[in-house]
Amino acid sequence: MRGLAVAALTMPPFPSRVHAEASGAGVESARWAAEFGLVTTTATARRLAQASPAELAGRACPDADSHRLRLLTDLVTWLFAFDDNCDDDGLGADPAQLSPLVVHLLDVLDLLGGPTPAGSLGAAGPFGAALHDLCRRAREVAPPALLLRFAGQLRDYLLALLWEAANRERDRVPGVAEYVRMRRFTGAVQPSFTLTDLAHGAFPVSGRLADPRLTALDTVAADLVCWCNDAFSYDKEHRLSRDGHNLTVAIARETGQDEQAALLATAERFNAGLRRYAELESVLLADGDPAVDRFAAARRCWIRGTYDWSLHAARYR
Amino acid sequence: MRGLAVAALTMPPFPSRVHAEASGAGVESARWAAEFGLVTTTATARRLAQASPAELAGRACPDADSHRLRLLTDLVTWLFAFDDNCDDDGLGADPAQLSPLVVHLLDVLDLLGGPTPAGSLGAAGPFGAALHDLCRRAREVAPPALLLRFAGQLRDYLLALLWEAANRERDRVPGVAEYVRMRRFTGAVQPSFTLTDLAHGAFPVSGRLADPRLTALDTVAADLVCWCNDAFSYDKEHRLSRDGHNLTVAIARETGQDEQAALLATAERFNAGLRRYAELESVLLADGDPAVDRFAAARRCWIRGTYDWSLHAARYR
Repeated sequence: MRGLAVAALTMPPFPSRVHAEASGAGVESARWAAEFGLVTTTATARRLAQASPAELAGRACPDADSHRLRLLTDLVTWLFAFDDNCDDDGLGADPAQLSPLVVHLLDVLDLLGGPTPAGSLGAAGPFGAALHDLCRRAREVAPPALLLRFAGQLRDYLLALLWEAANRERDRVPGVAEYVRMRRFTGAVQPSFTLTDLAHGAFPVSGRLADPRLTALDTVAADLVCWCNDAFSYDKEHRLSRDGHNLTVAIARETGQDEQAALLATAERFNAGLRRYAELESVLLADGDPAVDRFAAARRCWIRGTYDWSLHAARYR
Repeated sequence: MRGLAVAALTMPPFPSRVHAEASGAGVESARWAAEFGLVTTTATARRLAQASPAELAGRACPDADSHRLRLLTDLVTWLFAFDDNCDDDGLGADPAQLSPLVVHLLDVLDLLGGPTPAGSLGAAGPFGAALHDLCRRAREVAPPALLLRFAGQLRDYLLALLWEAANRERDRVPGVAEYVRMRRFTGAVQPSFTLTDLAHGAFPVSGRLADPRLTALDTVAADLVCWCNDAFSYDKEHRLSRDGHNLTVAIARETGQDEQAALLATAERFNAGLRRYAELESVLLADGDPAVDRFAAARRCWIRGTYDWSLHAARYR
């Protein structure tokens, strides 16, 4: 089925690039993850390495300075490791176990990377301490508005994981519209975009960020990243579980189509999304705001980068 | 038990005031709710009127101009009506029913009160159309950063309702720490604060909003509002259902205390929170930033206003 996905998806018409220091950042990020205790066995370290978080981050910001490349790489590493952790411990399908952990991580986000009151990180465990480290480093270099946006998007991500876990506990497959909307959160794409904006120096003023056209561009870009991921990962997820959190599964269930037709429908959504992205972008770029240009460039890198990384990474093989 | 709550809670040491136009705003807001179809029966209209949303809003912004008072009143009206709607239709305990509605409302929030593409509001029903109306009016008068914050806080609220509904479906009573953290979202206090900031002209710059001391002040104020509400509503909720989403229930369950001891523990948390609020505020106000002064004034009004409104409103009798 993976060959079908590859054949049916339009290759995003943006340059294929990767940061020259991506591989070095990956080595450092793997060490960072080990030092914080995000990976504790050889098997989980190997799985994380196979997922190539540094390649994905390096494709998202090919021209960033080393510091911001590392920060984005560590975020992607954290997200992959947390995802694996939820899978391994069954947390991702058990709201009663996941909720208390999510709450600790929400408390960490409330610190906004600032000073930590004594004992405030202990309860949040390794993932809490590492999350605070990300926020602390973002705080050092990011405009305050970007830091607030980043924390808010991670909150949405964490809350949406509870929705996903509750669905899994009940073997519930969400409808397509519901899945698409919530996948935008569970994919943690928007906080990743935001640290990519930091790496690209893309700081639209709040008046721009509140422009619904910019929101629409951001949304379409996030969907494209998620759907590309869903198309490439369908085989693996389908082999491993009956989990309904994949666009192809949601489409198959809602429409009654077989899996091949549903996978093609996923690809068609992706291809239509690319066309929609181009339309939205051409209108926005006509305004000639350099901050918006960089904002769009960051999203183009993510769209193409996810496609290329999906082709290369062993994660879904 | 309500008498016990009243006796045990410290009266917040802030002036008791209410907007001179609160009652007129309440009449207009009730009409607004009816026009949007948020209340469709005499019984639900009566219940909403008994909850006195206009009194609560009028206490939160006693000096606001009429326009901003109405906007806050309509938000509180919307929140009360939505809460009643979730109770009446069983949505609040049924994630499979609630999730698709939440997703439509999230789509409405993405519009940020801007132009609505044809057909974009239809699926979201009366509550979606009314929510868009609130965002549209906020957009007209609010700084863009405040609008973005408002939408983000409502997103958190909606996502947290899914957590609550999943708990109810499974008869799960969350632990105290988890309850306290999530109650901050399900109470929708922070988006209410934000429209109150609009009414008070309290616009701290993003550097201030990212100050963890300001976040802590905001958090303690939100908790105080929630816990006051929980203390006063315990009787009613306890009579009506076995729902575990009340601080007193969470404490009783976690500590094994009887309900009277747990209610006293709730009151003690509230009283300690008041002391904590005073400490945090005195440090922040020493900076002499007028925007922060107004930000704190808005929260003092909410804390005292909730207490006074709880004494007066028939909602919990």
